[in-house]
Amino acid sequence: MTSTPARRPTTAPGGGASRHSAPPSRLDPEIAARLKRSPDGLLPAIAQQYDTGEVLMLGWMDDEALHRTLTTGRCTYWSRSRQEYWVKGDTSGHVQRVKSVALDCDADTVLVKVDQVGAACHTGDRTCFDADVLAVADAPAEDQ
Amino acid sequence: MTSTPARRPTTAPGGGASRHSAPPSRLDPEIAARLKRSPDGLLPAIAQQYDTGEVLMLGWMDDEALHRTLTTGRCTYWSRSRQEYWVKGDTSGHVQRVKSVALDCDADTVLVKVDQVGAACHTGDRTCFDADVLAVADAPAEDQ
Repeated sequence: MTSTPARRPTTAPGGGASRHSAPPSRLDPEIAARLKRSPDGLLPAIAQQYDTGEVLMLGWMDDEALHRTLTTGRCTYWSRSRQEYWVKGDTSGHVQRVKSVALDCDADTVLVKVDQVGAACHTGDRTCFDADVLAVADAPAEDQ
Repeated sequence: MTSTPARRPTTAPGGGASRHSAPPSRLDPEIAARLKRSPDGLLPAIAQQYDTGEVLMLGWMDDEALHRTLTTGRCTYWSRSRQEYWVKGDTSGHVQRVKSVALDCDADTVLVKVDQVGAACHTGDRTCFDADVLAVADAPAEDQ
């Protein structure tokens, strides 16, 4: 018997290193068609506290993580180091409840406005940008 | 004879596609040593309006773009499409005056608080996230 023609695998999440080049995802195809992903199939996703405006953290989403973020009410990211999905707060309890999601003008970045429970940062800081502020030189006088 | 240990080339800016793997930069070596860059030598850089908290856009910085952002008072990015530095506002007049710069807890993302003149987006919108808001499903009742 001959094998049937190759089709895109519909492997389960975590099904292999190449999955981001042909991501099996339930994301709305109209949205998926517009996304401009990095070579590894991801988009940077900025999480912002919806009422105070604090930038909390930056994570990464593939199509399926974006789908889950849009449909479950909880921010879901793709961990580049662990190569798996993670729902923010599942371990720490510091969940991010999704208020709104927008793409940027190039459809290559996601902005998620959330209600962050507790600390966004694994260090215990409210945001991931609290601890490492760099010195900025005074701007030239003519540019003030 | 054995060869001497390989050393990173110190090519001039624009010296080739591999330059971001060994960026020649004036960035403080202490900062450079901590950065965790993408495979193409870049970090995502979030620009946020310093007083209103608006997330304006996301650009990309290599070491030298970060150095220029820290020392010139103006946001400088690396254009992945044009493969060159661009100083925000040099063409449009919509400059970003740097108020503060922070790295995140992993030193792989930059947050720049700026004073944005006019529109941040090339479309004329105030931010790059104004035009493409995605539909979010109602969260499950038990997660409210």
